[in-house]
Formats: sequence, C-alpha cells, structure tokens
Amino acid sequence: MSQQNLEPLDVEAIREEFPILEREFDGQQVVYLDNAATTQTPDAVVDAMSDYYRESNANVHRGIHHLSQEASIAYEEAHDRVAEFIGAAGREEVIFTKNTTESENLVAYSWGLHELEPGDDVILTEMEHHASLVTWQQLAKRTGANVEYIRVDDTGRLDMDHARELISDDTAMVSAVHVSNTLGTVNPVSELTDLAHEHGALSFIDGAQAVPNRPVDVAEIDADFYAFSGHKMAGPTGIGVLYGKQALLEDLEPYLYGGGMIRKVTFEDSSWGELPWKFEPGTPPIAEAVGLHAAIDWLEDLGMERVQAHEEELAAYAYDQLEAEGDVEIYGPEGGPDRGGLVSFNLEGVHAHDLTSILNDHTVAVRAGDHCTQPLHDKLGVPASTRASFYVYNTRDEVDTLIAALDDARQLFA
Amino acid sequence: MSQQNLEPLDVEAIREEFPILEREFDGQQVVYLDNAATTQTPDAVVDAMSDYYRESNANVHRGIHHLSQEASIAYEEAHDRVAEFIGAAGREEVIFTKNTTESENLVAYSWGLHELEPGDDVILTEMEHHASLVTWQQLAKRTGANVEYIRVDDTGRLDMDHARELISDDTAMVSAVHVSNTLGTVNPVSELTDLAHEHGALSFIDGAQAVPNRPVDVAEIDADFYAFSGHKMAGPTGIGVLYGKQALLEDLEPYLYGGGMIRKVTFEDSSWGELPWKFEPGTPPIAEAVGLHAAIDWLEDLGMERVQAHEEELAAYAYDQLEAEGDVEIYGPEGGPDRGGLVSFNLEGVHAHDLTSILNDHTVAVRAGDHCTQPLHDKLGVPASTRASFYVYNTRDEVDTLIAALDDARQLFA
Repeated sequence: MSQQNLEPLDVEAIREEFPILEREFDGQQVVYLDNAATTQTPDAVVDAMSDYYRESNANVHRGIHHLSQEASIAYEEAHDRVAEFIGAAGREEVIFTKNTTESENLVAYSWGLHELEPGDDVILTEMEHHASLVTWQQLAKRTGANVEYIRVDDTGRLDMDHARELISDDTAMVSAVHVSNTLGTVNPVSELTDLAHEHGALSFIDGAQAVPNRPVDVAEIDADFYAFSGHKMAGPTGIGVLYGKQALLEDLEPYLYGGGMIRKVTFEDSSWGELPWKFEPGTPPIAEAVGLHAAIDWLEDLGMERVQAHEEELAAYAYDQLEAEGDVEIYGPEGGPDRGGLVSFNLEGVHAHDLTSILNDHTVAVRAGDHCTQPLHDKLGVPASTRASFYVYNTRDEVDTLIAALDDARQLFA
Repeated sequence: MSQQNLEPLDVEAIREEFPILEREFDGQQVVYLDNAATTQTPDAVVDAMSDYYRESNANVHRGIHHLSQEASIAYEEAHDRVAEFIGAAGREEVIFTKNTTESENLVAYSWGLHELEPGDDVILTEMEHHASLVTWQQLAKRTGANVEYIRVDDTGRLDMDHARELISDDTAMVSAVHVSNTLGTVNPVSELTDLAHEHGALSFIDGAQAVPNRPVDVAEIDADFYAFSGHKMAGPTGIGVLYGKQALLEDLEPYLYGGGMIRKVTFEDSSWGELPWKFEPGTPPIAEAVGLHAAIDWLEDLGMERVQAHEEELAAYAYDQLEAEGDVEIYGPEGGPDRGGLVSFNLEGVHAHDLTSILNDHTVAVRAGDHCTQPLHDKLGVPASTRASFYVYNTRDEVDTLIAALDDARQLFA
C-alpha cells in the first residue's frame, strides 16, 4: 500500500484533544510511548461516554421506555459501526467482550472445547501473546490436542516454509497474531488463513495491535475469527471485540450463560437467542460501546491509512536512531511495511527494567518486561526488553528525547 | 435493623447530581423507576472516570512509568475499597469481572467444572435470575450433577422447610439470590449458607440487587462466593465483582487465560500468579474500577442504612398504593424488612408490555418482561410483569405519577 500521497496527520491539533499529554512530572512533560499497552483517549471519546451517562443511560435489551430505547439503539449501532470499520457483514458478526483476551477464550470454550479432539493440531506462532498462547495451550491439555509453533526467523519474521510444514490435514486451528506486540512484525495473516483453509482448518487472528493502527478488512483476510480491544484504539477499557463469520457463530455454543442471551428458559433446560446477543449475557459494556463507537469515528476522521503511515514513519525513525547508537539490540524487522508502530530493544549491559526506570526519570513512558511473550523472550535469550510504541499523537521529537536519555543509562551502568 | 432513628436522605440535593433526571420527553420529566435494571450515575462517578482518562490513563500491572504507577495504584485501591465495603478480608478476595453474570460463570467454570460429579446436587431457588439458573443448569448437564430448586411459597418467600429437605450431604453448592429482582424478597442467605456448610457444601450468593441497596457484610453471611455489578450501584457498566474466600480462590483454576495472570509461561506449560490477578487476565476494566470506587465513596457518604431505609419506605408506599387500587396483582412479600426496593405487578386485563408502554407515554420508566426469571413467571402463571424499582433519587411523588397513569391503561384496555 503506497503511503506516498497521504497528507500527514496534524499532530499538533491532535495533541490538543489529549489533556493527559500535558501532564508533567518533575517539571518535564510526559512523553507517552506505551501505546501498545494502552492508547490515550481523546476528549471526543471521554465526552461521548460522559454524555451517555448524563443523558441516555439505561439498560439495553430493548426496554420499552425512552431511555432504554436510546441506550439500546446506541448499543446496537456500536456493533454496526465496528462491523463497518473492519469489513464484517453486519452486527451479527460482532460480539462485544471485555477485552481481546476474553475474545480468545470465548473461541477456545465455544469452539475448541467442543470441536478439538486428541490428535488435532493447533498451530500458533512463536510470537503469540499469552492471551493466545496460554489459552490454546491449556485448551490443548484439556482436549488432547497438540500445539505447534511456527518458527520466528532471525529477522523476526515467521518462517513460512515452517508454516507450510506444520499446517496439515491434522490442523484444526491456526491462531496467529496480526502484528506482534513485541517484534512489531506484521504477519501474512491472509496467507496463513489460506493455508488453514486449504487443510480444512479455521483461523483466529489476534488483531489487538493491528486494528488500532492500520486499515483492517476481516473479509479480505478471510479470517474465521478476529479479535481486538477498545483501549488500544483511542477507546475505553472494559470492551473488546470478537469478530466471527456468521455461519460459524450460529453453530457455536455460548460459553457464558445468563440474561439477554436466551430464547426460552425452564427449570429443566434453556435455548439461545440471536447473534450476537447469544454471546453477550448479562448487562453488557454499554457506555464502553458508546466510547468505542466514538473512537472509531475519531480514527476514521483521521483516516486509517494516514494513521498507519504516521506510525510506520515514527517506528522506522526510531529503529534507525536506535541502530545508529551502536550498543542497542533491536528485535524484529527493520522499519518498513512489515513493521507496525513499535520498537522493542535492549541497551547493552543494562537491564530493561533499569533502562525503563531511567527513561521514566526523563518522563519517557515506555514498557519494560516480556510484554506477555515470555517464550519469545526465552528464544531471544533475554528476560525482558524495553518497548517504545507509537500512536497518532507522537512525534519525532519524542523519539529524540528517548534516544538522548539513553546516555544517562550508559553513564549509570557503564 | 431498626431504621427509626436514621436521618432521611436529602433527595432534592441528591437529584442535582443526576442531570439525566431532568430529561423530558414530550414535555414531561422522566420518572426513572428502572433501577433494578441499571441505576443512574452521579456526576461524581462520571467525573472520576473522565478525570482518570484525562489525567492518569495507562495500563496497569505495575508498569514502571509514572502514569502506569498511578493507574496501577488506582486499580489496586479499587479492590481494597470494594473489600472494605462488603467486609472482605482484602483485595485477594475481590475479583473484577465484567458483570454479575461473568462472576457466576467464573465459579461455574473454575470450581464447578472441576469439582462437580454425577450425583452431586446443586440447590438453587425458584426465584433465581437466569445468570445463576442457566449457568448452574448448563454446568449440571455437563457434569452429571442434579439441580433442585427451593420452592417459593405463596407469599413470595422461600419455603425453608423445603430448603432443609433439599440440602443434604449430596449437596455440593447452594446458590441463592440475596434479593429477588422480581419478587423483591430478601432471602435468609446466612441461614442458607449455614445449611450448606452443615452438609459440607459451598454457598454462592447473587447480590446484584442487595449490595447497591443495603449494608452487606459477606463475612457475616459467611458466603463462600458473592457477586454483584457496578452499574446497579451508581457505578459504571463494564465491571462486576466476584468475592470469594481467599483459601477457596487459592485452590481454584483460572477459567480465562492470558496476560497479567501468569507466573511463568513456556511453549509447553504455564503457571498462575497471585490473587486476585490470577482471575483477571488481559487489560482489566481500569476506568470502570475507578468509577466503582467513586460510586462506593458516594454511596457511603449517603450511608447504606439510610439508602436501605429510603428504598424500603418507597417500596412499602408503592406496595400499599398499588394494593389499594384493587385491580393490581402484586408479586412477592408486602412492604417491610424482607422486601427490597422494587415492586413487580400486573394490572388486571392489561398485558405488562402494554401497561409499560402506556406508563412510558407518561414518561414513567419501568420494565416489562420476565426480568430474567422466566421459570418463576411460569410458576406465577403470567408471561410477564411490570416492575418499578427505586433508588436514592426517587420520591413518593414519582410513585404517585405511576399510580395515576394506571387509569389511562384501564381506559384504553377496559
């Protein structure tokens, strides 16, 4: 996708919508580079939720009174808006969960627990987030299925030859992360999905680091399931999304039971309601759905291709700056079309936690740790890394602040 | 508990904190009597969440940078605040879920799926909400356990002789609603818990209609598990609570897998972290926890005994007014200490949906339906009822508006 002719984001104007970016600690303005953990929330989104509470708050499920009608319509339209944003066919394919993790577990319970059999293969990648890796691993233990991991090569990309070796007629599910939250790698999820389908398997794509940052079309990918979270895309906490193909979702058993998802209940048995409500028992995240809707409106006003271009440019710049330092080990592909907007690295001789702490002394907010990819870090041979991750309000100056602060760490730990 | 000497709530002052109560439809101010479905949210709670997003938003799990520290502390302190509010020993006993329904399902999966065996009895009541009834019913189908229901007598109270008959050494779990969301009955949950314990069984109490409305002390009840939701207690959507005794929770397997809940992950296996995080994988409802904390502060400023007295008084008034009409069938106990702040009823000859629709023409917001207690409605011999439910901002005048509007329904349907 050519980003050449896109008008750059007006970052200065964007930043005005995020009062938190004005926060100072010890007289220094915060440099927020922890966006892969959670993005900040623009006024438009915060106000949409506040307005909801102050004007239209009610429970949904089509109560008869005015407020419940308003809340129900807002809640249902949020599903429509998400469907439109990711290229789903309609609200039937959009389930609101509490986060990406629950979306993963929903499929593990509703599909995997019923369908997986001893001898079935579940194919993951070595760069899976724990939400995917631990969920499928534990499900496999329970069902007798095997888990195999597609190798990550030295450049931080998937070894697709290995993928073709592993994915076979024994494969029941291929679950892959769209954009790695540690390596930044943008994986060929369409190709992986095609491979799965050639062998009669399904695909689950973890898009937590993709949907917030680039145009995503689930129909184009042809994914059977696709998951992401509100709080990583300028939206609120407390809401995640599971996309699933309607025909598949129709056949799945719900995994959570309660009100709002049933057709008929007697003391003896129960039957289930329509999609997507069948998978949304209890009072759902109503205000959060309103916030997610507002976040999508806000992002689409910017334009997802411009969002992507902005992040790619910053990631490439950060990569180059870090590489020029000489004593920084960077994980994952160099800047370009197959790196998302984040860079994980280690400074020679300094533990990631110490480095991150020193960066915090300069009010640079990055994350140290295994980023919920412990096995990948084991493979990389490091206990932890420092991750800088970018969003629409970040600037080259902020990257420069990060780079300049590395000197302090060298001086303290040399 | 004597309510005699309590100073009444200053309802006029309270109402100023709820701009939504000023909403008008067709020139009539809304009379919001749908509080058992969801309560309204005071400015203090909405502002607490907005301030969080504008000042301290970050992901938790003890990231090193300033904002993550602030968010982590706020998130953890919300657990402490909930623990204190309900008499739990500490944050280890307080798990944040997405709603009461998820709290029920968590126990079904983490305890029930591992512990229930063919021949075990799960004892429910005929007035259980679908969140409890359907969850245990489906779990029983899966495990071969039996479900038995404690009878509701003609006054809308539990038949405790029947309870003593049903609860035996075969009983593994007694799951009961604290305050019925349909009948308003306040159940003897301590007594039920004692019965369970006498037979070596556990108790699960659904407190969704209790914690928002009266002082609740889980230690005093001695419940093993206790569940409720934020949005029914002046708090936000997107957050529920599961209380569990620490010793029990320590032994349970998590049912959702992902980041933030693990100790160690390899490609082969995983182990789990400390309570309560073991049960909170993925990015949790952070802003919602901040909102729930604020809601508890706000409620305790009012005083839960005064909240209870206010609601009991309104429910008794509504009961008496409805009864005086002569053509209204009311379900559940008459007003008094064993009725919570809600009244469900039917007007002779008028379907609950039609009645509710006419009440809505008078901008009276009540709920029609089975209130997620279909089997109970089957037993009552009606497909639906109309429910008026009260909160701290409601007044006798609002009850009068409801009563006056009944005439319209009579004229239209007589």
